[in-house]
Amino acid sequence: MAKLYFNFSAMNAGKSTLLLQASYNYQERGMRSLLFTAALDNRTKVGEISSRIGLKSEALIYDTKLDLFACIEEQLKEHQFNAVFIDEAQFLTEEQVWQLAHVADHLRIPVMAYGLRTDFQGKMFPGSAALLAIADILREVRTICWCGSKATMVARVDESGNIVEEGDQVVIGGEESYISLCRKHWSMRKLGEPTGENKDALADMMCELVDH
Amino acid sequence: MAKLYFNFSAMNAGKSTLLLQASYNYQERGMRSLLFTAALDNRTKVGEISSRIGLKSEALIYDTKLDLFACIEEQLKEHQFNAVFIDEAQFLTEEQVWQLAHVADHLRIPVMAYGLRTDFQGKMFPGSAALLAIADILREVRTICWCGSKATMVARVDESGNIVEEGDQVVIGGEESYISLCRKHWSMRKLGEPTGENKDALADMMCELVDH
Amino acid sequence: MAKLYFNFSAMNAGKSTLLLQASYNYQERGMRSLLFTAALDNRTKVGEISSRIGLKSEALIYDTKLDLFACIEEQLKEHQFNAVFIDEAQFLTEEQVWQLAHVADHLRIPVMAYGLRTDFQGKMFPGSAALLAIADILREVRTICWCGSKATMVARVDESGNIVEEGDQVVIGGEESYISLCRKHWSMRKLGEPTGENKDALADMMCELVDH
Amino acid sequence: MAKLYFNFSAMNAGKSTLLLQASYNYQERGMRSLLFTAALDNRTKVGEISSRIGLKSEALIYDTKLDLFACIEEQLKEHQFNAVFIDEAQFLTEEQVWQLAHVADHLRIPVMAYGLRTDFQGKMFPGSAALLAIADILREVRTICWCGSKATMVARVDESGNIVEEGDQVVIGGEESYISLCRKHWSMRKLGEPTGENKDALADMMCELVDH
Repeated sequence: MAKLYFNFSAMNAGKSTLLLQASYNYQERGMRSLLFTAALDNRTKVGEISSRIGLKSEALIYDTKLDLFACIEEQLKEHQFNAVFIDEAQFLTEEQVWQLAHVADHLRIPVMAYGLRTDFQGKMFPGSAALLAIADILREVRTICWCGSKATMVARVDESGNIVEEGDQVVIGGEESYISLCRKHWSMRKLGEPTGENKDALADMMCELVDH
Repeated sequence: MAKLYFNFSAMNAGKSTLLLQASYNYQERGMRSLLFTAALDNRTKVGEISSRIGLKSEALIYDTKLDLFACIEEQLKEHQFNAVFIDEAQFLTEEQVWQLAHVADHLRIPVMAYGLRTDFQGKMFPGSAALLAIADILREVRTICWCGSKATMVARVDESGNIVEEGDQVVIGGEESYISLCRKHWSMRKLGEPTGENKDALADMMCELVDH
Repeated sequence: MAKLYFNFSAMNAGKSTLLLQASYNYQERGMRSLLFTAALDNRTKVGEISSRIGLKSEALIYDTKLDLFACIEEQLKEHQFNAVFIDEAQFLTEEQVWQLAHVADHLRIPVMAYGLRTDFQGKMFPGSAALLAIADILREVRTICWCGSKATMVARVDESGNIVEEGDQVVIGGEESYISLCRKHWSMRKLGEPTGENKDALADMMCELVDH
Repeated sequence: MAKLYFNFSAMNAGKSTLLLQASYNYQERGMRSLLFTAALDNRTKVGEISSRIGLKSEALIYDTKLDLFACIEEQLKEHQFNAVFIDEAQFLTEEQVWQLAHVADHLRIPVMAYGLRTDFQGKMFPGSAALLAIADILREVRTICWCGSKATMVARVDESGNIVEEGDQVVIGGEESYISLCRKHWSMRKLGEPTGENKDALADMMCELVDH
C-alpha cells in the first residue's frame, strides 16, 4: 500500500534538505520522483526547491487552483515515477490533500509532503490541518528553541527584531523573518540566546533529532 | 521540561488500555497520577475509565466549561501527583488544550491526552485539532482495517450494519457503532471480512503496532 | 514479509505484559498465537508466562536442545497460528535464533522475541547477541534507574542488598534479585532512592516510554 | 544526561551522510563537534570522512590501541566541543566502547557512533557487539535489498561478481565489494535485480526509511 506522509516541523528544521535527500535516494536506485513546490513561496525562483546546505532540484509549481490528482495522472502518461514530493505543503487546500490521498490509494504512488504545522499565531495552515487529519504517517522533523527545549511553534519577527502578534497568515515580499520557539517562550513572546547550561541541553537534544 | 502528549488513533485501538497501563506505571514507582474523562461519554458510568481487557480506574470528569488549569492547580493543593491523563481528549475545547499546555509548561507536570483524530465524516474533533496543532509529542496508537492495511479513519455504522454518512459529530445514547477502516475503504464506504491473504498482512501488521 | 523482532530491555520493564497483550491482540481479531518460554525460568510454574499486573497465559517450554524450527513446523500441522512469541529469549542459543529467523523467512510467520540485553556483568546473553545481530527489528522496552535516567544495565543484588560482581550468568533457585540501573550508576555500583528532583525526571521519563 | 548512540546498518545505507549532516547541525548553531574515523579504512585518505553525495569533513583517526577517553579529554583542553562522532565504529574494541561510554557519562558529551552491525558472514564486529550491548540508544539506518525487503545483512562479492563465503573479517586493499541483502536472500546467497513488482515495494519501503 502506498502511503501519504506528512513530515511537519517549525521553521528551519531542515525539511527541504530531507525532501531533497529522500528524492536523491530514489534516483540512486534507478527510480524517479516528481517534485512540487508552492507558487507563493518567493524565497527562491519559481520551480526550484533548495536547502541551506546547498542542495537544489527542479520542481513543478502548484497554486490552490491546481487539481493535483489530474496533474499527476497526466504526468504519468509522459514518464514513469515512483514517488511524489510536495514542499511547502502547508499551503495546500483540504481538497488538494484529498487529491494526494487518492494518488496514494488509487495510483499507488507514495506521496511525501513536507510543511509547517502552525503559523506565527499558533493556528494551523489549511494544508497542515488536512494532512494532520488524514495522512497515514505523521513524522516530526524536530528543531530546537534557543533555551534547548524542543521548538514546536513559529514566531514572526519584524525588521527591528520584535515579535509580531497580528497580521495575515502569509506575507509575500515583506521584511519579516521567522524563528522557531518552544511553546513556553512562544507564549511569553521571549527571544534569547543559548547560555552555557542551555548549550549542554542543546547538544544533547540535537542527538535526539530523528531525521538529522 | 514536562510535555503535552497526544496519543491518537481510530476506534478500538486500545487507547484506554494504554492510558491505564501508563497510569499504573506511575503507581508502581510510588508516584501518583490524576485521571480525567469526558462527561458525555456514556459507555461507562461517569467517573471511570475502563478498557476491554478488564482494567479500570476512577477518574474525574470534565465538560467543555471546566477550566482544567484551575482545576488541576486546585487538586495539587490537596495532594501531590506526577502526571495528568485525559481520556476522550477529542472532546476538549481549544481553550482547554491550551490550559493543559500551561499545566505542562508552568506547573511542570506532564499531560498525556488520548483520543480520536477524526470523526465519522473525516473531520477533526475540536480537541484533536488543537492537540495536533500544539502538543509536544504526537503518537499514533495504530489499529488495522479488515483488509490488513493500517486503519486511520472511523465509520459510523447504524443498527442494520450500514455505514452512515450524515449526522451530528456526537450522538449520545444512540444505537450506532463505530468501526476503524483504512482511508481507501472508508472513502469507498466498504466494510468486509479478512480473507486468507489479508490475514497474513494482518498478522504482520500487528507486530508493527508500536504501543501494544 | 514476516519479520523477526527482538524486544529487549533491562529487568522489570514490563516485557511479559507487552508479550501477553500483543498475543491478546491476535486472539481479539480471531487469530491465534503460539507462545514459548524458557525451561530454566523458575519464577513461575513451567509452561506459563505471567506478568506483574496479573495477566497470564499458557506456553510451551524450550530448552537449549530443542529445534525450534522443527517444533513450530510440527505444531502447524495440528493447528493454524499467525504469530510466535518467545519469552526469556536471552536464553536461546545462536542456532535457535537462526531457526526462528527461518520461521519468519520460510514459514512466513512473524516471530516476536522478548528478553534481556545483558547480564549482571554487562555481557550479552547468547540469545541476545544473536538477536541483536540478525533480528529485523530491534525495539527497546524502556525502564528507569532510581536517578531518573534511562536504565540499560542490570545489577545482581544479594540477600543483604549488596551488588554482586562475580558469579555465573544464570543462578537457579538462589536468593538473588535483579535491579535495573543506568550505565553510570551500574559502573559505580551505586543503588539509591528517588529524591524530589529525581522524581520530576522520573515522571517526565515515564511519559517517553514507547511501549508503556 | 549525555548519551552514547549507535546508528547501525548494512552497507551503503548512507551512514556517513547522516554523520556529516548531524555534525553540520552543530556547527550551524555555533557549536563544535569532534570527528573520528578508523585508521584501517582505505576508501578515502586518512583523516577524512566523505559521503557519496559529495559531503566531506576532516577527522581524527583511531586505531585499536588509542585510549579514546584520554584522547578526547586531551582535545578538550585545546578547544571546546559539544559532540563526538565516530565513523566505522564496528572497528572499535570493547574497551574503546567503554571509553566512549565514560565520555558520555563523565565528560557529559554525547557520542554518536555509526557502523555496520555484522560482517559478510553474519558475525558481529567487536565494536558493534559492544555498542549493541551498552549503547543508550540503538538506531537503525535502513537500507533495502534488491527484492524490496529491508536489508539487514552484508555479502562480500569478489571481482567476478560472486558471493564469497570464507575469508578474514576485514580485507585491506582487496578487490572485493560489499552489497546489502535481506536475511532470506543472504542465506540463499542470491543476488538479483529489481523487477516491476519489486520496484513498487522498493518505492514504498524508501518512504519508511527513518533517517532518509
